[in-house]
Amino acid sequence: MPTLSLDAARDLAAAALRHAGAQAFMAEATARALVAGEAAGQGGHGLSRVAMYCGFLRGGRAAGSAVPAVVRERGGAALVDAGNGLAYPALELAEAEAARRARGNGVAFVGVTNSHHAGAMGLPVARLAGAGLVALAFTNSPAAMPVPGGRRPLLGTNPVAAAFPRRDAPPLVIDLALSEVARGRIQQAAQAGTPIPEGWALDAEGRPTTDAKAALTGAMLAAGGTKGALLAVVVELLCVALTGAAFGFEAESFFVAEGNQPRLGQAILAVDPGALAGQAVFLDRVEALVAAMLADEGVRLPGSRRREAEERAAAAGLEVPEATLDALRRLAATPPAGGPAG
Amino acid sequence: MPTLSLDAARDLAAAALRHAGAQAFMAEATARALVAGEAAGQGGHGLSRVAMYCGFLRGGRAAGSAVPAVVRERGGAALVDAGNGLAYPALELAEAEAARRARGNGVAFVGVTNSHHAGAMGLPVARLAGAGLVALAFTNSPAAMPVPGGRRPLLGTNPVAAAFPRRDAPPLVIDLALSEVARGRIQQAAQAGTPIPEGWALDAEGRPTTDAKAALTGAMLAAGGTKGALLAVVVELLCVALTGAAFGFEAESFFVAEGNQPRLGQAILAVDPGALAGQAVFLDRVEALVAAMLADEGVRLPGSRRREAEERAAAAGLEVPEATLDALRRLAATPPAGGPAG
Repeated sequence: MPTLSLDAARDLAAAALRHAGAQAFMAEATARALVAGEAAGQGGHGLSRVAMYCGFLRGGRAAGSAVPAVVRERGGAALVDAGNGLAYPALELAEAEAARRARGNGVAFVGVTNSHHAGAMGLPVARLAGAGLVALAFTNSPAAMPVPGGRRPLLGTNPVAAAFPRRDAPPLVIDLALSEVARGRIQQAAQAGTPIPEGWALDAEGRPTTDAKAALTGAMLAAGGTKGALLAVVVELLCVALTGAAFGFEAESFFVAEGNQPRLGQAILAVDPGALAGQAVFLDRVEALVAAMLADEGVRLPGSRRREAEERAAAAGLEVPEATLDALRRLAATPPAGGPAG
Repeated sequence: MPTLSLDAARDLAAAALRHAGAQAFMAEATARALVAGEAAGQGGHGLSRVAMYCGFLRGGRAAGSAVPAVVRERGGAALVDAGNGLAYPALELAEAEAARRARGNGVAFVGVTNSHHAGAMGLPVARLAGAGLVALAFTNSPAAMPVPGGRRPLLGTNPVAAAFPRRDAPPLVIDLALSEVARGRIQQAAQAGTPIPEGWALDAEGRPTTDAKAALTGAMLAAGGTKGALLAVVVELLCVALTGAAFGFEAESFFVAEGNQPRLGQAILAVDPGALAGQAVFLDRVEALVAAMLADEGVRLPGSRRREAEERAAAAGLEVPEATLDALRRLAATPPAGGPAG
């Protein structure tokens, strides 16, 4: 597989996004997030997304000229309007607001409205934890799962991320979607013609199915059944009702070329341990849990795989699939819209 | 089954707790919470707990004289020390602090340390939502589940509760433990001699088991497997590391008579919708989700069963099992410790 330095990957991704119509800071924030996802070993939230985002920008599903801004605030709370641009510049602003407000107020809750696809929320929480704050982040996404007792998709798979600082060690990072499995695993089974286990999906009529192709036209199921679906309702309400964004069932799928501006919502919660038991007690307690976890044979700390991937990427660059790199280079070489043809 | 008015149930429970050594406000806060649990149809978090709490008070696992107090605070954040008393007076203080700080700061995060068993966290969040705030609450509990990849119990079943105000309707209330099933269901299977499904529990050696008796000596499993266990780690860290409380594996079981002061932790998060998109937008968005949920045949709103039980209890009183009522009356008739014998 071809290898690319992190800088080169960011430059290529940013160039592609600029050529599709994103202004410079949007292209750069998006490139930072996607290269960080790729470096963390989350290929599904990495460079493979550049082409999709370029499509959104060219087709008008994302506004390349949007400038995120804080539109409401009170103490520890703030609302960022992403202006229907790509999510990442708004998330960077929300992250900065959360850090500043958590330090001043002990706790911060920053919502983002009129926002867009945000695959992994691990990046903002990991950065906040790197700065000494406990952080949680949530996003909704186009409808993929039914509510408990329901048959048609109403809720997104609604990722939840959390990060906790450690003493002299990288933060613990937890980053998961509330679906039983990622949609990609159902797609793989459909391509391979193999059945999927019960509990992964419903068919288009809302019946449990083990047929992967039928599942792709139906609904995914939540992790832990009713409990996961209820947690997805909580995420949907935190990200949407508090921010005035759109619910998963109001946002059109990202798997089709045409669609609306999804107006999704995100939320970041940050807490300064110094405002409660204090930094020293907090760090002692985290290490006590870490020691107990590692004493149980076979346990790996949350985020350790992510960190190892990041260290490999920092040392040796990113291994990018040939097809992804080719697509990226073609997109980056496209002249800016309205610019000269050659 | 005998029927008891809510007032009579509270009086009986409070008398029993006072006689076991709880000072008046602790007895009354605990009685309010347990009668509310019973009225909400959550018998496992209701009057059946009075005998257990009386045992804690008499045996020194809970300090009947403890006075909860705010010991640290900054803006929206505060730490309440429950002083190793029963949890409920500290939770009432935390709820009041969360409400006040969320109104002033937009968001509040209030931790509780040196606390005790708190079965259901639905009550504080439902009350906060009744006052117009979005609220989440968490508690840890004695170790019952392994961390992902682990074999021995390290994490509590760690309930998560959330409530969202509605326009002209009772709040949506979500209240769930992160274990696949409640321990009571494994106990029932053990008593009946029937097997349990895979995915519910591990045996004492950390191997998956369908033997209910072996499961009772082993570990319960999290809802959704690894994902539920990771969320339980998040709850453990929010309730313990930020507050300086004890982890689930440091608190001795509540299913044995003897044990330590568990020093558990709780956390309440409250957000004022008025500080973000505004109360009107928030309520509109909640109603949009409610309408979409109810359009999907067979869906019941989260908290509707709870509300129906509350309405029945308010109208007709509580149906209390004969054995529970007998035990309660005996405990309430016991003379106060150190008091006259008759």
